Amino acid sequence: MAPLVRIQNFVVSTDGYGSGEGQSLEHPFGHADPETLMSWAGATAHWPNRTDPGGTYGLDDYITRDYANNVGAEIMGRNKFGPERGPWENYDWQGWWGEEPPFHTPVFVLTHHPRPSFSKGETTFHFLDASPKDALTQAFDAAGGKDVRIGGGVATVREFLDADLVDTMHIAVAPVEIGRGEKFWTGPNEYVERFHHEQIPSPSGVVHNFFWRR
Amino acid sequence: MAPLVRIQNFVVSTDGYGSGEGQSLEHPFGHADPETLMSWAGATAHWPNRTDPGGTYGLDDYITRDYANNVGAEIMGRNKFGPERGPWENYDWQGWWGEEPPFHTPVFVLTHHPRPSFSKGETTFHFLDASPKDALTQAFDAAGGKDVRIGGGVATVREFLDADLVDTMHIAVAPVEIGRGEKFWTGPNEYVERFHHEQIPSPSGVVHNFFWRR
Repeated sequence: MAPLVRIQNFVVSTDGYGSGEGQSLEHPFGHADPETLMSWAGATAHWPNRTDPGGTYGLDDYITRDYANNVGAEIMGRNKFGPERGPWENYDWQGWWGEEPPFHTPVFVLTHHPRPSFSKGETTFHFLDASPKDALTQAFDAAGGKDVRIGGGVATVREFLDADLVDTMHIAVAPVEIGRGEKFWTGPNEYVERFHHEQIPSPSGVVHNFFWRR
Repeated sequence: MAPLVRIQNFVVSTDGYGSGEGQSLEHPFGHADPETLMSWAGATAHWPNRTDPGGTYGLDDYITRDYANNVGAEIMGRNKFGPERGPWENYDWQGWWGEEPPFHTPVFVLTHHPRPSFSKGETTFHFLDASPKDALTQAFDAAGGKDVRIGGGVATVREFLDADLVDTMHIAVAPVEIGRGEKFWTGPNEYVERFHHEQIPSPSGVVHNFFWRR
């Protein structure tokens, strides 16, 4: 099976926002509350940040445990990596994820201000000023024959979709309104001409949207 | 996370049968047609027997691609391994699965007539005359810290459930009636006292039932 470009476990509100307004160090999702966006995932047994042995093993857990399945690299936008804009004042900031980031693969951060690569736990962060297509070439070189995940945020995901570089996409619609911020879509109909589409409601209240290239 | 005992991708008819009547070399599911039971899985991109590059990437594909995810060994009943009953006439029979069985792990076949282990592709078959509990001890020893899947058929799956040895269970109800044969259940209500239960209909017509221990 040829390796894929996957958007996966990307969460938006019922009104189509992937993030709120005003990202900052304290508020990575701006005015939106990441806990309400992610509570469906946080309840599952395979949620990467889980510290106790409980959690559910239903539909939502299939989704969270597939997160790393056959993924060899991730590409993310700079705003997913951190709140700073423009040239780096220094290289102290190493991401939101502490000593063991949940990626466990090479991660390519798209930025107009590259900085040296560094490793944190099992994850190595690289910084690229590159087009989506060129970034994919580098990510696949690093992915060892596995898939490449496009990790977010909204602008990065849309850039890869606009360039028609995405093979499969999972968008989870969480039962919350954000009202303003980073808009991902008006609804799944934006993509049904280019992709097959399945919509699967979960008992948790989230609605999973699966897309794959026609 | 402690390794689990998982029943997974076990398919039954709407009237609760896992297999028809009269298993034989030509008819591993007896009078029931395995293609109608398995068509939901066969349509997916990750179906192990797929030979062309197509296939779906929706809900059913999450299920098929999770088949091998963190599984380190399988336990199966003798009737899943082959149609012969009683003492082995010889050891020519090596399973239904050709040169590359889809397990890729140690497989423990429960039988009152043990025979020598053998390997086929990446799968090694062992033969045990053991209780479910003792078989699990050996399977976990071989699983390298990963989970153990209880692979079927009906009698074997029920034996592990009756002994309360199962942690998670996925039963796919296919939209077909079989009428007679190996009955698995009258319905999911048989297990809701011991397990949490989610029922998720798929666009393919199959209904996925997920259970995890209370």
